[in-house]
Amino acid sequence: MSDIFGRTLKVAIFGESHGPAIGCVIDGLPAGLSFDWEEIRREMARRAPGSSNLATPRKEKDAFEILSGYFNDHTTGTALAMEIRNTNQHSKDYSELKVKMRPGHADYTGHVKYGGFNDYRGGGHFSGRITAPLTFAGALAKQVLSGEGIYIGAHAAEIHGIKDRPFHPMGERAELFRKLSLSKLPVLDEEKGKEMEEAILSAQKEGDSVGGIVECQICGLPAGLGDPFFDSLESELAHMMFSVPAVKGIEFGEGFGFAGFKGSEANDEMIYDEGCVKTVTNHNGGILGGISGGSPVNFRLAVKPTASIGKRQHTVDISRGENTDLSIGGRHDPCIIPRAIPVIEAASAFVILDSLLTDRSETYGR
Amino acid sequence: MSDIFGRTLKVAIFGESHGPAIGCVIDGLPAGLSFDWEEIRREMARRAPGSSNLATPRKEKDAFEILSGYFNDHTTGTALAMEIRNTNQHSKDYSELKVKMRPGHADYTGHVKYGGFNDYRGGGHFSGRITAPLTFAGALAKQVLSGEGIYIGAHAAEIHGIKDRPFHPMGERAELFRKLSLSKLPVLDEEKGKEMEEAILSAQKEGDSVGGIVECQICGLPAGLGDPFFDSLESELAHMMFSVPAVKGIEFGEGFGFAGFKGSEANDEMIYDEGCVKTVTNHNGGILGGISGGSPVNFRLAVKPTASIGKRQHTVDISRGENTDLSIGGRHDPCIIPRAIPVIEAASAFVILDSLLTDRSETYGR
Amino acid sequence: MSDIFGRTLKVAIFGESHGPAIGCVIDGLPAGLSFDWEEIRREMARRAPGSSNLATPRKEKDAFEILSGYFNDHTTGTALAMEIRNTNQHSKDYSELKVKMRPGHADYTGHVKYGGFNDYRGGGHFSGRITAPLTFAGALAKQVLSGEGIYIGAHAAEIHGIKDRPFHPMGERAELFRKLSLSKLPVLDEEKGKEMEEAILSAQKEGDSVGGIVECQICGLPAGLGDPFFDSLESELAHMMFSVPAVKGIEFGEGFGFAGFKGSEANDEMIYDEGCVKTVTNHNGGILGGISGGSPVNFRLAVKPTASIGKRQHTVDISRGENTDLSIGGRHDPCIIPRAIPVIEAASAFVILDSLLTDRSETYGR
Amino acid sequence: MSDIFGRTLKVAIFGESHGPAIGCVIDGLPAGLSFDWEEIRREMARRAPGSSNLATPRKEKDAFEILSGYFNDHTTGTALAMEIRNTNQHSKDYSELKVKMRPGHADYTGHVKYGGFNDYRGGGHFSGRITAPLTFAGALAKQVLSGEGIYIGAHAAEIHGIKDRPFHPMGERAELFRKLSLSKLPVLDEEKGKEMEEAILSAQKEGDSVGGIVECQICGLPAGLGDPFFDSLESELAHMMFSVPAVKGIEFGEGFGFAGFKGSEANDEMIYDEGCVKTVTNHNGGILGGISGGSPVNFRLAVKPTASIGKRQHTVDISRGENTDLSIGGRHDPCIIPRAIPVIEAASAFVILDSLLTDRSETYGR
Repeated sequence: MSDIFGRTLKVAIFGESHGPAIGCVIDGLPAGLSFDWEEIRREMARRAPGSSNLATPRKEKDAFEILSGYFNDHTTGTALAMEIRNTNQHSKDYSELKVKMRPGHADYTGHVKYGGFNDYRGGGHFSGRITAPLTFAGALAKQVLSGEGIYIGAHAAEIHGIKDRPFHPMGERAELFRKLSLSKLPVLDEEKGKEMEEAILSAQKEGDSVGGIVECQICGLPAGLGDPFFDSLESELAHMMFSVPAVKGIEFGEGFGFAGFKGSEANDEMIYDEGCVKTVTNHNGGILGGISGGSPVNFRLAVKPTASIGKRQHTVDISRGENTDLSIGGRHDPCIIPRAIPVIEAASAFVILDSLLTDRSETYGR
Repeated sequence: MSDIFGRTLKVAIFGESHGPAIGCVIDGLPAGLSFDWEEIRREMARRAPGSSNLATPRKEKDAFEILSGYFNDHTTGTALAMEIRNTNQHSKDYSELKVKMRPGHADYTGHVKYGGFNDYRGGGHFSGRITAPLTFAGALAKQVLSGEGIYIGAHAAEIHGIKDRPFHPMGERAELFRKLSLSKLPVLDEEKGKEMEEAILSAQKEGDSVGGIVECQICGLPAGLGDPFFDSLESELAHMMFSVPAVKGIEFGEGFGFAGFKGSEANDEMIYDEGCVKTVTNHNGGILGGISGGSPVNFRLAVKPTASIGKRQHTVDISRGENTDLSIGGRHDPCIIPRAIPVIEAASAFVILDSLLTDRSETYGR
Repeated sequence: MSDIFGRTLKVAIFGESHGPAIGCVIDGLPAGLSFDWEEIRREMARRAPGSSNLATPRKEKDAFEILSGYFNDHTTGTALAMEIRNTNQHSKDYSELKVKMRPGHADYTGHVKYGGFNDYRGGGHFSGRITAPLTFAGALAKQVLSGEGIYIGAHAAEIHGIKDRPFHPMGERAELFRKLSLSKLPVLDEEKGKEMEEAILSAQKEGDSVGGIVECQICGLPAGLGDPFFDSLESELAHMMFSVPAVKGIEFGEGFGFAGFKGSEANDEMIYDEGCVKTVTNHNGGILGGISGGSPVNFRLAVKPTASIGKRQHTVDISRGENTDLSIGGRHDPCIIPRAIPVIEAASAFVILDSLLTDRSETYGR
Repeated sequence: MSDIFGRTLKVAIFGESHGPAIGCVIDGLPAGLSFDWEEIRREMARRAPGSSNLATPRKEKDAFEILSGYFNDHTTGTALAMEIRNTNQHSKDYSELKVKMRPGHADYTGHVKYGGFNDYRGGGHFSGRITAPLTFAGALAKQVLSGEGIYIGAHAAEIHGIKDRPFHPMGERAELFRKLSLSKLPVLDEEKGKEMEEAILSAQKEGDSVGGIVECQICGLPAGLGDPFFDSLESELAHMMFSVPAVKGIEFGEGFGFAGFKGSEANDEMIYDEGCVKTVTNHNGGILGGISGGSPVNFRLAVKPTASIGKRQHTVDISRGENTDLSIGGRHDPCIIPRAIPVIEAASAFVILDSLLTDRSETYGR
């Protein structure tokens, strides 16, 4: 079930970087939802390549077509399918990569798994391009959540050692998230943003790339979403996030920082605030026992440097069974974070909407 | 599906800390497997309370009974069920906790989710005690994997800022993992282990607790396990790990360290080594594109300090709707890491066996 | 996932006829439900052996114990586990059956599937005894549905060629279903019931058994439950019903009778009745396009004669690899229908409650 | 999960009769399979309208395009997506049907379920047209099974009371199935076929339709596929079959005929035949305890008369809330069986391949 995700709301994604089309089928969207397609296109454009000097200059419009499930400007309640035709494929760029395994990519693991039958052109199904349908599905979810007062934002918390200041753990305003979403490199501290930009462009000049950390925040979430154990909100979010290429770590709240904490520092004390139960702090990232507590859900993702680099690397040629080296030509992202941010926001939204819909059956009778 | 996990191999867990019994049903174990029950009991004992001065002195034998699925010393191929009777319940210890929400626990989030119907005694279904059936299921998996030459070990990589040295990223020997599994606080550097022990006992004296980091390594895994996107090995392992109470972060390979890396440093170059493709380094923790590459799978888990502490904390009394404070009496773990380690090893084993069994259908025809 | 069923409401069953215990884990029951345990015991007793002269005289109390998920007389919202200890096992009765495959049973197919590791005592996991936990799970569902005004009944529509009159397709009263549930052989026409009883007892005398048809009706179901295609109400009910041993056919509404119908006879015309849309007839068994329409759901199940018979039959001895014959001694049901009826009602209830809970997420926003 | 089916092999279908496209995503197809696309097109053409005087004269080429998962003439191992553009839509034919609920159709049940948001044009997602992607997915499965020596055939066992002779329960030859697949109305007895044809054309003249029974046989299946209880082969096949519009009943082997059998007549005795265990008869349709036994799997499906008829029927106008009547114009199938047969064969193949792939993990170690 590699290409299908979800409990109540499900998405099946398909496609290869250089095949005829990529897309998705979304099953479980309730009937009667209406979408602002301009806004969906805007979210897709944030992820698309060619949008800024920080990303690959490849131009792909990622124009999507709705194939089913939307009628008279509303969801029908049955599967909503979408496709994006692949139009800007440079197949000849990738011919050498059939036999030379790119370090840091899934070329070799995919080759073994699929017995050599995988589509090697541009990474095939492993391509970051396949996050476009995921972004689409999540962008729909984001709009539904917005109607519930739930909003999601993310920023580059760190790029190659340069750190932005963090979101306030008790939550930021929707306006800030909106503003960030319009930026080519969303940060809170503009100065740090400039330094990050320089680091990215400098890596690009060297034919290299840089990694970083994305911080994501989900505000407005009611208490009670998620489950203990296997469907904990942390489990579901982490499951989804590690589906996003290049993500290599996730931490909620203080995360790895807890290693230096005592219990008396780590626990979020509770108080009544205007008749509502609140936590005074939010070290736990809004989730306890796998269930949301009403505070914002905060998590951070480690994003590794783009694996495609121009610098020459040692690798193997599997057709000859010998060692070789490789410089990956073509147009690559010197840092994937600017384009990963909308994917991460969208993917989070999908998980949260799935939890929200699942919760409807869990709260039967109330 | 909160209490059911798995794709091909599934486990359903049940129970509350103070109910009649806890246990699990395992569906999908192939027929004809034979287990060394003494070894299973040994793994269970590693997790059980009362085993060392670093853990709660509560004595629970966690004696399990097989209810089905095992006949003539082999699995039958149908559901294997197990139960552990709860025998050492101090219900009166918990009466105050019905109304006072313990900070850092799921008392409040569970109360909201279940509309006040949750079993509040000892955390109910949120209790760490429910990891006993998970440890059982995973210990079975561990034995099956052992027959495939796959072995798993973990150690306390850090406790309250004191750091052990890491596993070698290219893999440790099975003997080391065996030796670690016999230790009450598994570490590589004995000196650091003593410091950690002091930190734990010192926190205990203050009525406080400490957090840390567990490093886990899976050796002997063949290349080709896992899938791109939603069933990536990272997704599956992370999903499971966030089901273990107190885990608040996971990183694979360099994880958050990638934020300071360049691509040329992060990519693992490949070479032929005695005719086999190997990576020279293992920054990516043995997984690329969600699929194992043949190097050990390395990951680290952030474990927060035990939420149950004797120190007085501010919280709410939901029966009176007012603020109050609370000192949690009774017998608690000043650091959960020594007891979490066997759970983490077992839970990892369960995920890997599930992937191995899933892979059987994926490699049909080969 | 052989032993796990359900979409939103899930049940995992376990156990073998002669193992220590049988039982189930139910995941997805909303919190706050309260059950009348006497009524559950009554439903279990309807299925239990030894209750009438029409069933095997084996005495099994099928006394169940709740292990988790029920606290302060309400469901907690987490997994509800139940076990029944096996107490009346006559293991020696079954020793010959280790090697002689009983015709009409799963002895041989199970032997092949599980490579000879299956528990052969009393059919092991294939035993009809494993329907006890299913009956339990369904009896809980039945009580929840009852609170929604949904009630379910079944009767012996036919036994060995003797036909009872059918339920009225537009629905029967709850009182009739209650009365039927108190009968050892539920029929509408008492005369036919006596004939059936004679046919059963006559077959028993010959060391033989008889088959028949069960008709089941679900009343009070609102329109809109179920889905088109793969989760059609018919698909879900049929899936469950073929899990009940001895069921070999299912038909909804006119079922196989449709083969002689014209469209103008088969279609259920619609009218407004006191402002509500009604069908004039109910040939389609209350389901169109996989979705309930508000009329009762009617279906009939073919139940084959009990495979265990005293009459001598040709079969194989797999230990010697030669032909042999076999007379199955011991105490068997000359007709399984009286004991199958409560299983069928309960299993139906489980499916309907699952649909009802699933519907809660599908109707989000309404 | 209405639009997703399968355990190890999964298919997600999408589309509406009058939307831009219909199609499917198949997840879990092993890598390295090669398909004869001409043969797939032939299977699709059997289902397509306009192919004979017994079917609707609507012309739809059902030309499919592979969007992903197939590269260098082999499956890649990742999701295989397919779409069929809708080209021959007569939207204006259906305008009246927005408000007048067609008896026997899902118009009303769909209207209630989806709160009026369903696509009402041509039945929308309820249209029989959506079986085209299912036929596609199953046709792929059929080819894979063929390589395993498993072949599937079906014929019109009965149409409007006229009965063809049955398949031999111990199996027919692949050549017969091939021959049947080339016939516009597959029957064993040509004379009966002519009578059936007359009955169909006669009903058409009256503006009416007729129902019937399809018999399907799966030959060459090894013993050991399927599972006890919830994933019994009967459960899986029935689940799938009730997803095919117009199917209202299924019976395996003697099915409802068992109601007149004694156990001694119903049990299939076993013998050694050239060293292999065989059953002498095949009353149980090749399945015992949910598991295949090596004999052919035989089942029969009740297919109701096409609901779309020209004859005037009483129904409701939901826009006015009043009774009305309706004559459904346009081009309809006077009997759906000729076009349902390839769907049924394909759908069966999908289930069997799913079982075969699932079995690979279940037989781990053997």
